[in-house]
Amino acid sequence: MKVKVRSGTILLKAAHQAGIYLSSICGGDGYCGKCKVMIDQGHFESRPTTLLTPDETRENIVLACQTKVLSDMTVTVPKFHSLETSQILMDSDAHRFSELRGEPAAGVFEYDPLVQKLCLEMTPPSIQDHTADHERLYLAIREKIDAPIMQTGFRILQGLPEMLISSNYRVAATIGRRGGTTEVIEIEPGKRCETNFAVAVDLGTTTVVAHLINLTNATTIDTEATYNSQINFGEDYIRRIIYAEENDAFDEMQNRIVHDVNDLIVTLASRQKIDLQDITAVICAGNTAMVHFLLNLDPRRIRREPYVPSASFVPPIRAAEVGIQINKRSLLYCLPSVAAYIGSDIVAGVLTTRIYTKKGISLFIDIGTNGEVVLGNSDWLACASSSAGPAFEGSGVKHGMRAGAGAIEKLDILDDGTVEFKTIGNKHPVGICGSGLLDTLAELFKNGIIDRTGKFITNGQTRVTEGDEGKQFQIVAADDSHQEIVITQADIDNLVRSKAGVFAAISVLMESTQTKAEDLDAIYLAGGFGNFLNVQQAVTIGMLPDVAPEKIQFVGNTSIAGAKTVLLSRKALETAEEIAESMTYFDLMSYPKYMDEFIRASFLPHTDLSLFPSVAGSLKKHEIRSTKQI
Amino acid sequence: MKVKVRSGTILLKAAHQAGIYLSSICGGDGYCGKCKVMIDQGHFESRPTTLLTPDETRENIVLACQTKVLSDMTVTVPKFHSLETSQILMDSDAHRFSELRGEPAAGVFEYDPLVQKLCLEMTPPSIQDHTADHERLYLAIREKIDAPIMQTGFRILQGLPEMLISSNYRVAATIGRRGGTTEVIEIEPGKRCETNFAVAVDLGTTTVVAHLINLTNATTIDTEATYNSQINFGEDYIRRIIYAEENDAFDEMQNRIVHDVNDLIVTLASRQKIDLQDITAVICAGNTAMVHFLLNLDPRRIRREPYVPSASFVPPIRAAEVGIQINKRSLLYCLPSVAAYIGSDIVAGVLTTRIYTKKGISLFIDIGTNGEVVLGNSDWLACASSSAGPAFEGSGVKHGMRAGAGAIEKLDILDDGTVEFKTIGNKHPVGICGSGLLDTLAELFKNGIIDRTGKFITNGQTRVTEGDEGKQFQIVAADDSHQEIVITQADIDNLVRSKAGVFAAISVLMESTQTKAEDLDAIYLAGGFGNFLNVQQAVTIGMLPDVAPEKIQFVGNTSIAGAKTVLLSRKALETAEEIAESMTYFDLMSYPKYMDEFIRASFLPHTDLSLFPSVAGSLKKHEIRSTKQI
Repeated sequence: MKVKVRSGTILLKAAHQAGIYLSSICGGDGYCGKCKVMIDQGHFESRPTTLLTPDETRENIVLACQTKVLSDMTVTVPKFHSLETSQILMDSDAHRFSELRGEPAAGVFEYDPLVQKLCLEMTPPSIQDHTADHERLYLAIREKIDAPIMQTGFRILQGLPEMLISSNYRVAATIGRRGGTTEVIEIEPGKRCETNFAVAVDLGTTTVVAHLINLTNATTIDTEATYNSQINFGEDYIRRIIYAEENDAFDEMQNRIVHDVNDLIVTLASRQKIDLQDITAVICAGNTAMVHFLLNLDPRRIRREPYVPSASFVPPIRAAEVGIQINKRSLLYCLPSVAAYIGSDIVAGVLTTRIYTKKGISLFIDIGTNGEVVLGNSDWLACASSSAGPAFEGSGVKHGMRAGAGAIEKLDILDDGTVEFKTIGNKHPVGICGSGLLDTLAELFKNGIIDRTGKFITNGQTRVTEGDEGKQFQIVAADDSHQEIVITQADIDNLVRSKAGVFAAISVLMESTQTKAEDLDAIYLAGGFGNFLNVQQAVTIGMLPDVAPEKIQFVGNTSIAGAKTVLLSRKALETAEEIAESMTYFDLMSYPKYMDEFIRASFLPHTDLSLFPSVAGSLKKHEIRSTKQI
Repeated sequence: MKVKVRSGTILLKAAHQAGIYLSSICGGDGYCGKCKVMIDQGHFESRPTTLLTPDETRENIVLACQTKVLSDMTVTVPKFHSLETSQILMDSDAHRFSELRGEPAAGVFEYDPLVQKLCLEMTPPSIQDHTADHERLYLAIREKIDAPIMQTGFRILQGLPEMLISSNYRVAATIGRRGGTTEVIEIEPGKRCETNFAVAVDLGTTTVVAHLINLTNATTIDTEATYNSQINFGEDYIRRIIYAEENDAFDEMQNRIVHDVNDLIVTLASRQKIDLQDITAVICAGNTAMVHFLLNLDPRRIRREPYVPSASFVPPIRAAEVGIQINKRSLLYCLPSVAAYIGSDIVAGVLTTRIYTKKGISLFIDIGTNGEVVLGNSDWLACASSSAGPAFEGSGVKHGMRAGAGAIEKLDILDDGTVEFKTIGNKHPVGICGSGLLDTLAELFKNGIIDRTGKFITNGQTRVTEGDEGKQFQIVAADDSHQEIVITQADIDNLVRSKAGVFAAISVLMESTQTKAEDLDAIYLAGGFGNFLNVQQAVTIGMLPDVAPEKIQFVGNTSIAGAKTVLLSRKALETAEEIAESMTYFDLMSYPKYMDEFIRASFLPHTDLSLFPSVAGSLKKHEIRSTKQI
């Protein structure tokens, strides 16, 4: 791969220009150390970094994001880059996630899709009835559906007479709901009545999932997932906004996500042998930043006080306007969102779990790249977003990885200190994915290998050694062909910060609403990671409130489920809008108590053990220090 | 002017291609004789015609529409063509028509324009209020106006944050009403609040009139008129549809009328020093065919049974979509119409005269190129369209002309047989315009020069002579430098047919609704011709029912007045739609009694003199034959 760049260009940018997507979690800030490459020849200039060993530096290994190209050069990209960021090799997480339930609650909302095809058989004009074609069409549509306010595009109107005459006034009319207006999107010959598809998309920061839906019978035909290819510009969306702002790359950000959506649609359509022209709607749910990226709405103020989105209720637009390559008159819907950090995916979650209808109080948690929390019932809904960070997605963790083959997904430390684990695909272990990290943290804690501050206790712990980066716990020893797998003190600190962020957000909502753990009727865990974690372990480390395990439910990809529910019923869209309007958003950044709560939650399980009675009882192996002492 | 055409091309078409617009009233059918040109050299082939004298034929004068070009040729276009059809020289009719009242009834409908600019001063976002920009805008708009259902174009949405920030949340929002939806058309800096204009257009078959309106204070600033440049493809719209169909010239038809509208707008805007970008709406009223031409909707079935328009209620579209060159997001509205032959100009007339609100029965007549008639009150409205033909516009009349300088506009025959007349501009007479033709017909009849069948009575009439085309009445004798002006038997037959068409339409409506002349509270005369005719004479020839003259009102250009009323009030648009829906259309072509009524009305004033008591009494000079004898 060759590319010509100016002298002084940052190597990471040059690589992107060449179409080579290097791992980069920090968005080019030089602190994740993932964009290592080896310079075979050529002049360059690198900023000093602690993320390279002297050996690596001697071998001309550099961080691409910290290196300027000063002459022609040849660069070797380590193999793990292409593995980890390939668009083709999906990991199990994403694949599993793509199929996770995501079915709309049947029978809750009546079938009344946002886009539908109507079979219209009109009586042709006669001397007795010379109603104009346009009004004849409207009358026929209104016999079928409720459509007091209608609209027809000019081109459709111009082609209408010919279509009506040539099909002897039997046509398939595709209509789309836009706010209170019903738009005639397309008129086709009558035989095309039964061919109508839509795609629901969950715009995740890490993973983009699409479901193909047959609109005529409201069934999901197929599902597919891909990595969000923006990931090379930053693992979380804040990094991506910064990257886009600094590099004037908003168009590029949009191109990436649109490309991903198009990829998914093409894959689904070709697998199901469906003409792209027959896809007449796309409906999206996702966090506010992702929706802004998709539509190329200015996302900059999402990360700046007072955190104002361009739009929370995005009006339906033509999918073609953002570059989605289906029927050019088809509509793109986005579910409504609440705030800069509570996106439409969370509204979709509330809609799907139906906590807005329940008398009892429910807690909804979506742990993905961020951690959003909703607390409420039929009377009130409160929400907040924690800056949990992607530690449980493997980022910022030395041997963290996504749930691919060889990832440790379950882990147990036996009383004798033996570590038992299970890897995805039963392969030789190559790293630890989210659920494995959670297990590791809980097991280290339960077995007294780390204390309540998350620090290694060294006395008598043979597996705790001193590594390059300080103390670490060996999970798998190296052998001739495999590297050692460890968890470091820094990893643990990261994981604790992540769980503390989630729990502090929960605490703020619960305290503000005077809700106690025993008041909770249910906890719903959504998102990719949420679906595979060990609930008991999550309580042990103090990530989730201490409730009876049977109250905790995995609800899968509620983002896409909610999107589909809305797609299939106007009433559901109205409900989603009501939900979004009624949710009270707690801005944790400006909420005085949040930092206190975060600090209190930065212990295992918490400074206040009375909040975790089920954990307190089992901490036999610990020397329990009282809250006061901490 | 040079043009290259294929051998065999019709000369009229070749002239059009060269940009030379020859008079042609019949649309190239070879029966109006207006497209005479002289071939100086070159081979050609002409169909035989009775419209050329042998002398003309010997001079190589031909009808351009009946002549094929067979070689290179040089053609001379007679001067009268360029005079009569020039786009620059407007005749008095059109100019007077452009200014004829046309003011919306003040105070009848509340000011609530279809397009308006709102001055919005929003509180900028804060930690306490991080409402998204899009929703902030909607809230601000809804504080000002009733807009339950809103819509924003994608490009506007994308540019919104920058506009809000740069103008510190003080903006001018242009909003447009589209059906039940309120669309945000444009967002500008706040200082642009007061700059907002619209154009109302009356799309006449012969004359296109435009009024420039300041939307912020609902005043008409300026008016302008032009000939409809489609006129060279046929004087009436049926001819133009045929021409377009035969020559695949629908685009050309649209281009012509759009060009006319653009010309008017540019003239108005430059005269008033207004930026075209500040014109945010165009509203049109016109007959159904003209609206179809403007929008390039298929007009072919307007002239074919069962006479079905493409659309009667045309949805608002972007003016740019048809090529109107103002602000590219501005809207084009068309008033609703009733049927193929009852256009939105007539609905506008009903709206303006308010006959739909009155207890008493009114008759509304628009005599233009066609003659549309509405009868009704607050309980019912009936309408019909007569194929009156454009005789009173001077077409099909030997010395007929439009109301330009030198046109005889008033005529009186004294008892001694002397003819007195008045010409426009007091110039030497060159022809006779509509009101003059009506006077001529009435005076010939009252003075016993023609009988009740419209035929010349020769005994003792010195001015009745035998001309090339049979008997004729000399109005002005020739002198050295001026031609003779006569009215021929064929002219009279044409005029009688025209008035019979109008009266037969009135008769059908009156008989069908059992309305007698004495039941009529008012007769409203609209349209260019209607405004200058002598009411008494119109009753004398039996064109209007015999009612007291004070019951007859000239109402001017109600088409443009109605368009402006609708532009300035949503309620007026709703009312216009209700009117259009409630009008019962009588299709005279398929109405059995129409032909009887037409024949009865083809006498002066009518076969049944009891319908015209005021006329019957004054027919002293006639040998009155009884109805029975006729």
